[in-house]
Amino acid sequence: MGRWEPDARGRLERAALELFVERGYEQATVTEIARRAGLAQRTFFRHFADKREVLFAGARTQQEYLVSAVARAPEAATPIDAVDAALEAAAAELQERGEYARQRQAVIAANQELHERELIKLAALAAAIAGALRRRGVTDPAASLAAEAGIAVYKISFERWVSEPGPPDLPGLIRESFGELREVTAGTA
Amino acid sequence: MGRWEPDARGRLERAALELFVERGYEQATVTEIARRAGLAQRTFFRHFADKREVLFAGARTQQEYLVSAVARAPEAATPIDAVDAALEAAAAELQERGEYARQRQAVIAANQELHERELIKLAALAAAIAGALRRRGVTDPAASLAAEAGIAVYKISFERWVSEPGPPDLPGLIRESFGELREVTAGTA
Repeated sequence: MGRWEPDARGRLERAALELFVERGYEQATVTEIARRAGLAQRTFFRHFADKREVLFAGARTQQEYLVSAVARAPEAATPIDAVDAALEAAAAELQERGEYARQRQAVIAANQELHERELIKLAALAAAIAGALRRRGVTDPAASLAAEAGIAVYKISFERWVSEPGPPDLPGLIRESFGELREVTAGTA
Repeated sequence: MGRWEPDARGRLERAALELFVERGYEQATVTEIARRAGLAQRTFFRHFADKREVLFAGARTQQEYLVSAVARAPEAATPIDAVDAALEAAAAELQERGEYARQRQAVIAANQELHERELIKLAALAAAIAGALRRRGVTDPAASLAAEAGIAVYKISFERWVSEPGPPDLPGLIRESFGELREVTAGTA
């Protein structure tokens, strides 16, 4: 059963986001998403559990990417520098997808349920990053603190990226926010 | 309707936590909680929407407490010091409730749904603290960064407090973790 549909997953993701932006997340249905992607509803459910999960389909890949980027950081890198480098690299990847990440974030910010799902995703990312730091020999609480601080920076940088129409440079915003966090925790900002 | 039941709310909270600890959160029912508290099931639903919300009944009070503690901090306090002072004061209050806060945290840590609800509560606390900082004249991103960093410290200190049987001093753990965060962000830990 099920003939092969080229890039069905990507087509469904793009169709879903288009519809969420045009008509609002609550209003768009799986039937419409599948129709927009030129695919059967059945195909949708082969790839995603429900309408919400289309927006979180990349979470696993993103987590694996961050974990391996932390692992790859130079041996001499401090924990916070390893986290910074990993998040900037992930941000550069996201930015290459163009408007997708930005529009996705706007849809999530406008809906409480999606916002909560995103918080859970970010907490899982923080836990995975802390684990990657421990495997580099970083002890706790430094591993957890560096990971949680990194995710806080990521979250705030993303919000700035989406809300400020000007600067499209997400990795740059992350680097800047890490600097500001350092000043804030040192009590100089 | 509804005769007055002295401290019905507190009795239900304590009965619920007792049952969650004894039998596990999933197994305990509202009927049992009400029976344990010596109250009618109807009384339970006058105070709480469902079994889960008993564990989050204090969230609003806690948030108001933190917001006013941030507002009360000395004018010269840096944003991070205002957040630190507020969290330590809230932690001291929690600690006075004795085993309640510790047991509650253990129940939450053991259940995914509760853990997610707690993340949402913490995100709301961070947003409220950032708002309180802005009202002190702190600009963004410093306000958001100080608030998010504070909540990260709070979360990690709580986890340490619950998992380490030795040190019962939650405010002390928070102070210590703020110091460690400063070292981590400065790259000296």
